[in-house]
Order: sequence, then C-alpha cells, then structure tokens
Amino acid sequence: MKSDLSQLMRERELDALMISCPDGLASVNTSFLYFTGPAHVTHGHIIVVRRPDAPDLEVTLVHAPMERDEAARAAARAGLRLHSLGNYDMREIHRAVNGDRLAGQVELTRRLFHDLGVQGRVGFYGVDERGSSYIFLDALVDANFVEVVVEYDNDILSEARKTKDAQEAAQIRLACRLTEQVIGATRDFLRRHRVSGETLFKPDGNPLTVGDVKSFIRREEAALGLDDPGCIFAIGRDAGVPHSAGTAGDPIQLGRTIVFDIFPRWPGGYYADITRTWCLGYATDEVLQAYALVREVHDRAEAMLDTIRPAWEYNEMACDLFEAHGHPTPRQNPGLTAGYVHSLGHGFGLAVHEAPSMRLKALTGNDDPLPAGSIITNEPGLYYPDKGWGVRLEDDYWLNPNGTVERLTEFDPELVIPM
Amino acid sequence: MKSDLSQLMRERELDALMISCPDGLASVNTSFLYFTGPAHVTHGHIIVVRRPDAPDLEVTLVHAPMERDEAARAAARAGLRLHSLGNYDMREIHRAVNGDRLAGQVELTRRLFHDLGVQGRVGFYGVDERGSSYIFLDALVDANFVEVVVEYDNDILSEARKTKDAQEAAQIRLACRLTEQVIGATRDFLRRHRVSGETLFKPDGNPLTVGDVKSFIRREEAALGLDDPGCIFAIGRDAGVPHSAGTAGDPIQLGRTIVFDIFPRWPGGYYADITRTWCLGYATDEVLQAYALVREVHDRAEAMLDTIRPAWEYNEMACDLFEAHGHPTPRQNPGLTAGYVHSLGHGFGLAVHEAPSMRLKALTGNDDPLPAGSIITNEPGLYYPDKGWGVRLEDDYWLNPNGTVERLTEFDPELVIPM
Repeated sequence: MKSDLSQLMRERELDALMISCPDGLASVNTSFLYFTGPAHVTHGHIIVVRRPDAPDLEVTLVHAPMERDEAARAAARAGLRLHSLGNYDMREIHRAVNGDRLAGQVELTRRLFHDLGVQGRVGFYGVDERGSSYIFLDALVDANFVEVVVEYDNDILSEARKTKDAQEAAQIRLACRLTEQVIGATRDFLRRHRVSGETLFKPDGNPLTVGDVKSFIRREEAALGLDDPGCIFAIGRDAGVPHSAGTAGDPIQLGRTIVFDIFPRWPGGYYADITRTWCLGYATDEVLQAYALVREVHDRAEAMLDTIRPAWEYNEMACDLFEAHGHPTPRQNPGLTAGYVHSLGHGFGLAVHEAPSMRLKALTGNDDPLPAGSIITNEPGLYYPDKGWGVRLEDDYWLNPNGTVERLTEFDPELVIPM
Repeated sequence: MKSDLSQLMRERELDALMISCPDGLASVNTSFLYFTGPAHVTHGHIIVVRRPDAPDLEVTLVHAPMERDEAARAAARAGLRLHSLGNYDMREIHRAVNGDRLAGQVELTRRLFHDLGVQGRVGFYGVDERGSSYIFLDALVDANFVEVVVEYDNDILSEARKTKDAQEAAQIRLACRLTEQVIGATRDFLRRHRVSGETLFKPDGNPLTVGDVKSFIRREEAALGLDDPGCIFAIGRDAGVPHSAGTAGDPIQLGRTIVFDIFPRWPGGYYADITRTWCLGYATDEVLQAYALVREVHDRAEAMLDTIRPAWEYNEMACDLFEAHGHPTPRQNPGLTAGYVHSLGHGFGLAVHEAPSMRLKALTGNDDPLPAGSIITNEPGLYYPDKGWGVRLEDDYWLNPNGTVERLTEFDPELVIPM
C-alpha cells in the first residue's frame, strides 16, 4: 500500500519517481491517479522525492497553468505540493534547442528536476505512446542528468498497489454498494416486464433485448455517478463465452442463463467487479447442477482465503473439484473453450485487473500467499457455448491487514429469478 | 485519413505496423480504436502489413482466445482479419525462456510476426506503461528479427488521423447532434427551476448547484449512449479559468457567466467538443461586450476557414482583434491568466485534442494550411477570474475534401437565457 512506498524506494535505491500523464490518458493512467485521486487534470506529472533525512516522501503535482484550479483541488484532497509548468518559458526553451521538440522536453525535464531537487536514480512511470516513451527515455539516458530506472515486471507502483489500505478498501466497498444498487435495479427492471411464451416484452409490444437492458444499466450507473467501461450482459450461448459482452439484439427469455458481469468505477477511481448469473423463471437441471458446483467452488475458495497458503492453492482446488465432476479445466488444456476456461480470480483496484494473481502452480512459479491488504475477486464459472449456456459467480474480498477476511459484496447469489 | 496510410507507409519505408492494446487501456488507446472501431477487446494487437504487390493493406486483429466473440464482431464491422493468441502455447514459450516474462513476450512476438509474414521495418504504436515500453522495444531491437521503427513527432498514425474521411465526419456529426441534445436538455432543465432573488431553487427548497446540473448532464448523456470524460460547467469566477471543471457546491445564480464545455464521445469512439456560455436572466454590460467581441472573432475565423492560408493566420487574427480592444493575449505574454489566455482551436477526432493545431506564427514554425479533411474547433474566449467571469464560444468544423467548409455544430449561440 501507499505507506510502503518509502521503504520500497529505499530497497530499490530509487531517489525519485516521475509519473507522467499525457493529455487524454488521465482516465486510465492509474499510476497517476494513485497519487492524485479523481483529478480533472488534463496533463501533468507527479514527482515523488525521497529525502534520506526526511520521514515522509515529498509528492508534487506538476501541472499546466490552465489546469491550476483542478490541480489545486486534487492537491488539497490528496495532500500534494503544487508546481506549475508556467514557471518555464517554453518559447525560450524552444529557441535554445532550435525548435527540436524532443530536446525541448528533455530540457524542460532537466529544469524541472533541478527546481524540485530531483537527482540520483529516478524511476519513470505512467502510460504514453510506446514509441515516444522509448525515444524520450533513450534521450534522457543520453542526457545523463539523472540515472534513468525502468522496470518491466513488478514495478514499484504495482508492488505498492498489490495491497490496499483502509481508505482504498473504503472506496472499493462504496463502489461495490453502488454497483449492487445497479444490479438490484436491473433485476427489478427485468421482473417488471410482461412475459408471453418464453419472451419478455416491453410496454410498446416489442421484445425486451440485451441492448435495452444495457441502456437501463448505463442510466442507473450515471444516476449514481458510476463510470463504466462497458459491462457484460450475455444470454444463452453468449453467456458461454466469458468475455462476450452480449449481443444487443438478443431477446430476453425465460430459462436461459444470463451472465451479468459489471465492473464500474466510482469517481475515486476504484473499481468494483461483480458477476451474477440469472435464469428468469426457471433453470434447466443441467444449469442448476453446474451452478451448484460453481457455488461450491466459490464457497470453498472463500473459506480458504488467508495470507498464509500459497496463492496457487485456490485455483488448484477449483480444478480438482471441477475435474472430479467431469468438467475440463485449463490445468489439463490451456486452450480450451468449454468447461472451466479461466482463472479463479484476480486482484483489482484502480485497474480492473491488477496483482495479485491466483494462477495455477505451474504458471506462477512461486509459493507466495495472497498478501495482507490485497483485494481480490473469487469468480469460478462453467461455460458450454455449444450447449447454449454459461454460469459464473463473482464476489470481492479484502484481506484486511488486521487478519480478517472481509467480503465486500453482499448481493443475493440466487440463480433463478421468480417472474 | 485512413486511405492515405498505404502511401504514408511507402513514403516512410514501413513494411508493417504493430499497435498494441494492453489490458485496461482500450478506452483511450486511440491508435488501436482507429482500426477496430468501438471494440470491447480487453487486450490484443493490430498488425498492419503492406505487401509491395497487393493493392490494399492487410489489417489483422490479434486477440486473446477469451475475447474471440468481441474480436469477431469488431473484425466483421471494420473488415479486419482475425488471428488468435490461442495459436501460441504460452506454457511452452514460458519454459523455452526459463520463465523470463520479457523474453517470453519477445518470443511470442517473433512467432506472431513469422506467422503473419511481418518482416523488414516495423513501426510500434499504442499506449502502455513508459518503462515497460522502453524495455520491451529495447529487447526487440536486440532480438533483431525485424527493424524496430519508433517515431516521436508526427508519427504515421497521427499524420493519417490529421484528416478525416466522410465516414469519420459522419460519426463526429452524430456525436455533435447528440451532444447538442444534451445541451438543449440542460438549458430546459435550468429554465424549469424557480428563481428567488438571484438564485435558482430545486423543488425541495435547496439551491440548485453545479453538482446537481452535472448529475443531470451525466444522466442525459447516458440515456443517449454518450461516454463523457467529465464536462466543464463552471460559474462566475470558475468560468474565468478555462479548464476549471466547476465547483460542485456552487449555486446557480442569475446574471453570472456559465461556461459549459462538453466533449463526450459517441460509442464509435469519436468526440464532439462544444462550448456555450450562458447568463441566466440577464448579463452585465461588461460581459455582453466581451461576448460580442468573442462572437466577432469566432465568426471571422469561421469565415476565413480554408485549406490555403497558413494555419497560424486564424490565431494571429484573434490576437489582433482582442489586442485592439485592450485584452491581453498569449502573443504578448504566454503566461497570462487574464484576457485571451489560450489558443483559438485544435483538431479532434478519436482524441479530444489532436492535429492540426492553430498555433501562433512564432510557435508553429511553418506556413502549413489546415489540410483538407481536418476537423477542428473554433473557440475564442475571454477570461477575467478576478472580476468573476469568463466567456467562450466553441463550434466544430469539417474541411470537407470536396472544398467546402461544414460547420458540424448548430446550437443557438445566444448568451442570455430568458428565465
């Protein structure tokens, strides 16, 4: 968690971090949002400096002059220092480097680092175009006014973000509550519709479709201030393909599996990630049995959650149980498209997929447990697209550093919705 | 535009392009969206291959097996070939490289390029973490199975995207229509409120606030399927800071300037970008005069729009006219915070800011005109935060390749809204 960052910087011998946020990328630039919270800063930088003799890190938000209001709001909320790019005369820099934009950015960085006392080993983070990142960092290596540090696997911010503090858990808990309001409203919305034969109909006489339901979901989310990259609402055969988002024109019908996987973000930037599977009116015996097995795997995994056992144990247990009931698993065949076709769960936070993972023993290569403070999903499922169905059940958990395991999701896991 | 890409690749001697979309970055990975359209593909690659003897480029969407449905939908819509990462045994690769994830990604890329016939000079695009981009591309240079090409300024995709074809213009026109529906609904919403003294009140007796209006806007956008990164609805002093998004608790009052700058995205991925300034009930003489001047600059710029004159002429004209009326401009002082404090306009499309620019002569360094096919904003404004007001008027235009200039926005530009 964020309070580990100072120690992590010491261990990795990093004197400073620079996290950039280019124009237009703020919404998914999680390394930046980690420090600012929900800022409306179009572009800028976060500079984190570790001073050997100071107890706390110095975190500065560097912003364009026109962004000064939103930068000040974010800084006040998150306890950041402010530094304006208005301190630098870009026309003078432009002239000094004969109009070379790359050289200008390097020179701006040199002046910025000088003014903020950044020196030594500096790590670089934040998303940007791959090509310009490569060229800029390469030029910075050549300029040699700091030692450029880059990390491929398990960079320092991912390592810190692997665990969440109480404030982050509170944001995710809130995102879960609001998301469950949307799930509940959607269930009510479905139940309000008239059924004729096997199909739900709208008041205008047309069949209710996946597209209609998604419009309803989007409006409910907007009313609660949730930001959604697009949920999965997939019926029948589509429910049998884990990441099929659903076909807009599909009619909503009784007895078919509906996989509703919703992962919106609360303005704080933190996600919820919840899946319910519904059968309206009734479910077939085959689906009832599969869902009962999925619930059993889910409940066993939940009961196992701790910060001691190797994290691969959860998914190995899931494979054991599914295989014992004759369902193919990725342990037997990684390319399979029917059976239990994905992993058991994943960490999430500012991104909808982040560390830690719950991968199989053969894939993870270590015996690390889930760390105290991690927030993870538990989402077993079974998928048979050729038979026209799929089921998944997904809840979220915080492995509270005080030693307890908190389920963050509460929504009724019942499969069959009486109509 | 996209049809220029083949020629641009020939000019730049590029045999192929690889555009990557890491997990979680799809929504803002505009280089990827440029080829797929509004895809729900969580992660994957676009590979563009130019074959010297073939008339058309080969564009392939490389996707994870679990994304096969959404990939197939996007491919059908956008005319792409499909290639699944399921063709590669990641466990075997993992073993072959002794579990080194970076080496595994390089080996996967080698096999992928082999199978798709990618060789020669390959450009790399798409957003990702800066550090891992640097390390991956560096490793690819060392591996030496293709020539790695990276571009800092004016990369080939930005160059192509500088101009829009009729299909793209149609998407932006639609985004503008829907955005204007939201603007109109917001104006009606404001007018429906009871006024007491200078303040608007809600039915519950509390003052109507900026936060209330933003909630209304968000719901209207959601109902129309618009995706919004967060609009500006700033009143009084906040309207005097161009990128202040507005203070949620501010009450809506008569006679104060409201800058409403809204830039949502239609699911096709293309933005609209429209600003209206409103004064409810009445405006002060000072604001009326300032807004009349802003409209004059706006209308003159609109009348000048062509594909012949240097693109710096528009903003120079704006500075001429504002300075003649005693308003400070960035031509005199780039760091100013009162007067005409920004540029006249910018291109947009899949990003809310993209090429071409309308910068001042001293900053642009060339006499290039706006290219035929460009889509740009025209958005003069005047800002006096210390006097408690700011005004801006922003419309969008397509410089149709057939030689005409089409205004894409139609919304009433009147300042004063009768209450």
